Amino acid sequence: MKPEYINPFIASTLEVFSTMLHCELRRGELSLNDHFQPEHDVSGIIGLTGRASGTVVVSLENAVACHAANAMLGEMPDSVNADVIDAAGELTNMIAGKAKADLEQLDMCLAIPTVITGKNHLISFGSSAQTISIPYTCDWGRLSVEVGIVEKG
Amino acid sequence: MKPEYINPFIASTLEVFSTMLHCELRRGELSLNDHFQPEHDVSGIIGLTGRASGTVVVSLENAVACHAANAMLGEMPDSVNADVIDAAGELTNMIAGKAKADLEQLDMCLAIPTVITGKNHLISFGSSAQTISIPYTCDWGRLSVEVGIVEKG
Repeated sequence: MKPEYINPFIASTLEVFSTMLHCELRRGELSLNDHFQPEHDVSGIIGLTGRASGTVVVSLENAVACHAANAMLGEMPDSVNADVIDAAGELTNMIAGKAKADLEQLDMCLAIPTVITGKNHLISFGSSAQTISIPYTCDWGRLSVEVGIVEKG
Repeated sequence: MKPEYINPFIASTLEVFSTMLHCELRRGELSLNDHFQPEHDVSGIIGLTGRASGTVVVSLENAVACHAANAMLGEMPDSVNADVIDAAGELTNMIAGKAKADLEQLDMCLAIPTVITGKNHLISFGSSAQTISIPYTCDWGRLSVEVGIVEKG
């Protein structure tokens, strides 16, 4: 995966949280992974295809997911309910959508997001796709964004 | 989601299991879901985009995932290890790939598969995407394939 493909995702995550949720993120150290253990509880996953194939995973702690749903819907959920799942899917969609606009040379389209919930779920990209993980913290807790993009041969 | 979009996925799942794994599947009753609780332990997820956006989830019981890895790699894993995760991703890729060939009017491309492991993970498509679930049984155990496809407006 080319390093220049990661910058649009870093920028789009900061921008979506700031403008849509009024939440400022602090970014941690990037890491290269071929196997991804989210420490978080709610993960949105979305595929992208075009001149390259990619997948984006946005993993949130429960508290971050609930606060994000509150910021989007104006009501604080008391657990990870259908509204929180919809908010996590929409957030994943927006982060991937803004990044793809900055990767216009790859001419990508978005698939339908899915949202995984449940403690201790493990998300793997398989051994053929190298991915980059971007950790963030904010006043609500922790989250991370994981991106894998493979150019077509 | 148009019902005629589901037949290619029914056919491709049967064909991939039969030809690649020498395993004959028995299909159960289709159901419409907007919320999907896989009872299984290993789920491959892949996005498709083109004239429509879609996502396919292939959920396997641990025993089915291990037997599938054995059939593909010639060695029976004693737990859900990296080989099993790779096999589940490749299986998801093949099922979605064969189905997309039969949906040529939608001109779809595949994103990168991810594989979710862990007991009690819940996969949701969000309230905006109606999906169809296809359950199967085989001599190794149970599996299901969940498909959501949304045509572009």
